[in-house]
Amino acid sequence: MANRVGKYTVVFKSAPSIIGSAGVVGKTEGEGPLSKEFDFVFPDDTMGEASFEKAESAIEREAIIRAFNKAEISMSETDYIFAGDLLNQCIASTFGLRELGIPFLGVFGACSTMSLSLGLASVFVDSGASNISVAATSSHFCSAERQFRLPLEYGGQRPPTAQRTVTGAGASIVSKHRSDCPSVSAVTFGKITDLGIKDANNMGAAMAPAASDTISNFFDDTGLDISDIDYIVTGDLGFVGSELLIELLKKDHNLDISDKHLDCGKMIFYRKDQDVHAGGSGCGCCASVFNSYFINRLKTGEYKNILVTATGALMSPTSSQQGESIPSIAHCVLVTKPDNIG
Amino acid sequence: MANRVGKYTVVFKSAPSIIGSAGVVGKTEGEGPLSKEFDFVFPDDTMGEASFEKAESAIEREAIIRAFNKAEISMSETDYIFAGDLLNQCIASTFGLRELGIPFLGVFGACSTMSLSLGLASVFVDSGASNISVAATSSHFCSAERQFRLPLEYGGQRPPTAQRTVTGAGASIVSKHRSDCPSVSAVTFGKITDLGIKDANNMGAAMAPAASDTISNFFDDTGLDISDIDYIVTGDLGFVGSELLIELLKKDHNLDISDKHLDCGKMIFYRKDQDVHAGGSGCGCCASVFNSYFINRLKTGEYKNILVTATGALMSPTSSQQGESIPSIAHCVLVTKPDNIG
Repeated sequence: MANRVGKYTVVFKSAPSIIGSAGVVGKTEGEGPLSKEFDFVFPDDTMGEASFEKAESAIEREAIIRAFNKAEISMSETDYIFAGDLLNQCIASTFGLRELGIPFLGVFGACSTMSLSLGLASVFVDSGASNISVAATSSHFCSAERQFRLPLEYGGQRPPTAQRTVTGAGASIVSKHRSDCPSVSAVTFGKITDLGIKDANNMGAAMAPAASDTISNFFDDTGLDISDIDYIVTGDLGFVGSELLIELLKKDHNLDISDKHLDCGKMIFYRKDQDVHAGGSGCGCCASVFNSYFINRLKTGEYKNILVTATGALMSPTSSQQGESIPSIAHCVLVTKPDNIG
Repeated sequence: MANRVGKYTVVFKSAPSIIGSAGVVGKTEGEGPLSKEFDFVFPDDTMGEASFEKAESAIEREAIIRAFNKAEISMSETDYIFAGDLLNQCIASTFGLRELGIPFLGVFGACSTMSLSLGLASVFVDSGASNISVAATSSHFCSAERQFRLPLEYGGQRPPTAQRTVTGAGASIVSKHRSDCPSVSAVTFGKITDLGIKDANNMGAAMAPAASDTISNFFDDTGLDISDIDYIVTGDLGFVGSELLIELLKKDHNLDISDKHLDCGKMIFYRKDQDVHAGGSGCGCCASVFNSYFINRLKTGEYKNILVTATGALMSPTSSQQGESIPSIAHCVLVTKPDNIG
């Protein structure tokens, strides 16, 4: 039975476990600093498909299949899959999961989708509405560029604040609590935050206020102290947004996370050598790094717990063309090491 | 505590109640047969906004505000809002709800969104993860036409199987069980179904197999008989899809719903006089009709219970241009009259 704590947070009495997870990425991500962490690196970014959208479907499906294999359970034992992505009408997820035969609960949180879907799957398992549920998402550099920015062939120049959409996907299989697996202890769902930023080439700045809001709500609601958490892991704030987040939390909430903060978007690429400007972005950034690098370190007990805070920019090219600013959102999930470790 | 029944269904022990609901529509819908049922009819389809996308945000917000007023609670008492829509990156919902300050859990189910969001809100309330949650969605004829089909100015001819996207929105406020309100007893979440239909002007035919699958799963899982249900209410199969659904359920599952079936898409317009071809469609079709006409009749006890089955076509213009067929989905929610009536 879930336990509401404060205004925004659900603490799980049963602490559902992540019994399998996988992060898969494209070629460029596979040449980055986390190369050895991922479950699979696709040798080229078409994934053998006829379009970039179909390629994105393929990587999302691949992450899910690999997560199932690692959990050593079959898909037919699964109740629900929570998934979504950045493509119009979430077609990476719908076409990627079409053949799996698992009931599909589509979610939309832009790049916050990994923590949104993981939070939802955990509520379902904790409540008994599901025994086993999957949380998954993906992004693809080429499908995102042509949908949100410019055709790749145009060769547009990108400003220093721009981030590179990660070609990658991740999936977590959530089940009843097990003492030998990492577990989800709490989730704080976020409000839409909009400080009026309009620059679609500076997503980190647009999303940092949402992360600041949800992270401070998590600490207010749970009464935990920053010293109780090993790392506060954001999804894809990148180099610009991460600095802003640290500043905002200090200024507005008197929280100093400067030596506790990691950002998947800063970790996934070599900043200079890979010419990625302000770092990685996209739903697949947090999804691939959380489900490989971070889960690996929770499993060994190297990290005691992490507060996974994926952030999303809730705009579309249409809203930007109509002069709108970029509303953002962040959802926090507290994930802890297995009970039987350390 | 939720009770899993069969493979796809959650039966709620607490039966969360819908303590307020509202359906609002545009001018054309307000001239249809359900004119007197809606909570509000906008006098023109711009809703006083500068774009059709902003107009859609305005109608979704209006439905939510009216549902809160009818529930006689304030927004600040609300934990979560589950909402989504058909626009790219769900901008009708994100911009429509931006100012409300309620944590936002974005969902994507295309036109199945009303039953998806209502099912999720019910799981959250039943489990104790939330005390009060909102389920909402919208669609707008003009924003949908230009995004999915052709610019309105082009004046394209529509085939007889085409449906008209409803300009409308609906919202349900879900709270702990109350004996004086309609309640949600069960939800069956659907699988993605794809029989290979590629005609984006025949959505009813694409979605009927998904409805047939989820409805038969609901009866298999719960052990209920068709005679236990007053009406099986589909969202927007329209005239073509409704006939197909009745045929499929009879042929594949030996279920005869012919005298138990109502479809919001068939009910919302005068078929001939309003020149709507195969009926209404869009997330707002089920949302506006369920949250007004059907809730009104459950409240008085005229209907004992209804199985609300919104269906969604999970395609995008991009997937259709790439030659893909139209995967579909349906989610069923069993809604019953107040305990203290009849």
